[in-house]
Amino acid sequence: MKAFFGVDLGGTTVKMGLFEEEKGLLEKWEIVTRTEDNGSHILDDIAASITEKMQENTLNREDILGVGIGVPGPVDKDGIVFCCVNLGWENYPVERELEKRLGMPVKAGNDANVAALGEMWQGGGKGCRNVVMVTLGTGVGGGIILDGEIWPGNHGAAGEIGHMSVVYDETEVCNCGKKGCLEQVASATGIVKEAKKILAASDQPSVLRSLEAITAKDVFDAAKEGDKLAAAVTEKLGEYLGIALSHVACVVDPEIFVIGGGVSRAGEVLIQLVQKYYREKAFSGIKDIRFALAQLGNDAGIYGAARLIKD
Amino acid sequence: MKAFFGVDLGGTTVKMGLFEEEKGLLEKWEIVTRTEDNGSHILDDIAASITEKMQENTLNREDILGVGIGVPGPVDKDGIVFCCVNLGWENYPVERELEKRLGMPVKAGNDANVAALGEMWQGGGKGCRNVVMVTLGTGVGGGIILDGEIWPGNHGAAGEIGHMSVVYDETEVCNCGKKGCLEQVASATGIVKEAKKILAASDQPSVLRSLEAITAKDVFDAAKEGDKLAAAVTEKLGEYLGIALSHVACVVDPEIFVIGGGVSRAGEVLIQLVQKYYREKAFSGIKDIRFALAQLGNDAGIYGAARLIKD
Repeated sequence: MKAFFGVDLGGTTVKMGLFEEEKGLLEKWEIVTRTEDNGSHILDDIAASITEKMQENTLNREDILGVGIGVPGPVDKDGIVFCCVNLGWENYPVERELEKRLGMPVKAGNDANVAALGEMWQGGGKGCRNVVMVTLGTGVGGGIILDGEIWPGNHGAAGEIGHMSVVYDETEVCNCGKKGCLEQVASATGIVKEAKKILAASDQPSVLRSLEAITAKDVFDAAKEGDKLAAAVTEKLGEYLGIALSHVACVVDPEIFVIGGGVSRAGEVLIQLVQKYYREKAFSGIKDIRFALAQLGNDAGIYGAARLIKD
Repeated sequence: MKAFFGVDLGGTTVKMGLFEEEKGLLEKWEIVTRTEDNGSHILDDIAASITEKMQENTLNREDILGVGIGVPGPVDKDGIVFCCVNLGWENYPVERELEKRLGMPVKAGNDANVAALGEMWQGGGKGCRNVVMVTLGTGVGGGIILDGEIWPGNHGAAGEIGHMSVVYDETEVCNCGKKGCLEQVASATGIVKEAKKILAASDQPSVLRSLEAITAKDVFDAAKEGDKLAAAVTEKLGEYLGIALSHVACVVDPEIFVIGGGVSRAGEVLIQLVQKYYREKAFSGIKDIRFALAQLGNDAGIYGAARLIKD
């Protein structure tokens, strides 16, 4: 039975996991991401950590299938990362460089896509081969899994669901420079902004007024308890995420939508909210596509990375 | 060198083509689609016509790779058509049934997807492997080609771009039962409806007022000659098609968009119109995705069907 590693490379930490075919995740750990010197130490650190873990577990090269790695930027078919602003990488052949250091096969993918692959393998999309994952975090990301594999697109931009321009009457500008992106109403940041906007624009009573700093969780909690102002914010999220996913369904027609990221901690109420609007806007044959919450949390990245190399 | 057949099965005629690997399309012809008796004669007629054509060209079974066929309904991986309302077919194993009659391999696909495959092979998307085609005809259809193959989706609904709900303020109902589908403003029918709506609602002068029956071509011609009322209709088409394709790009990130169907006879002016709005709404990395007009016209179906069996 072979072991393999899943690496989730982020801007501050590198999450790592040791997997085994039958037993799944055996162990996970983290190291710091050293971004100094244009990120030139990162792969050395990862290789050293993997070598150490192999020694700890008395694993030899021949016991290891290889290493999968998710990186925060677009990756092409040859495992070259176009650019990772957070890491200082540009046109960096991450697969080849890590292979050189470890002497074993390496497969790289974009982090959002890799997380989607993880959720397909062992999370909310388990048992499905065609999965669209949306991650509602600081921003809104997405990953498209078709026939069990990541579909990266021609420029690595497939699954950029957060930047669908669905809010036609938006007046503020998104981080990407456009107006009306889904991210502006469905990310944790967007939810807080929306709440503050409505609070400032009206005298409507709301429990949110008594809070010093508002979080997306506060807005969902208040909405659950009947706060009308908070509910307007969550309804807006549900409406536009529902619309966006109805568009996605017309394009790739997946088996299941998996919703993850910090905002998804709101739970089933979020699924119901999105599904209500989705079903209104979806084409007849695909109204019943399933929705599920992500299940792997912060481990989706290491699971997906491991899955990259497993097949 | 092997020959192969491409069959484009429509509700009134069956278009057929004889292809050869080096020379491409050798000959094309049509037969009538006999829809009586729940379409039970259709495959017999097709098989007889193919057999006849083989005799005419002194081709034997061993000279033929097989037959590809596009059908007007969703087709699953086993070549079973869920339903073709126009033909009276329901859960019909079209591949197996035609194979039985001809004793050669048959591959079936949905007609809109097959047309997209044809345009990728020998039309507007030639040289590309990731193509999204939109057909602006009586309705608005679409086909998604990823890595050189049709992506049919989980319910055969991938590429149903015409039913993306992009017109939020639409008051009329689409044929599909929803409101605000792209088809309502971007199909030939939709263009005429929109023009009539504006004509009725205002006194604005327009050359369209002097016409007995308005066609989509009339609207485009009038817009080209500076008719403001007509231009409002074509701008609306451009705007919403641009928005819809910006959504599509966020999902699958193709190499090229190919625009076909009767409305696309308007030519380059249509491409420019759509691109203007597309670029406004598209995510930064994918603003420069190419646009092209379809080139195969009514032959896209036989080309795509032939391509189904060629590989």
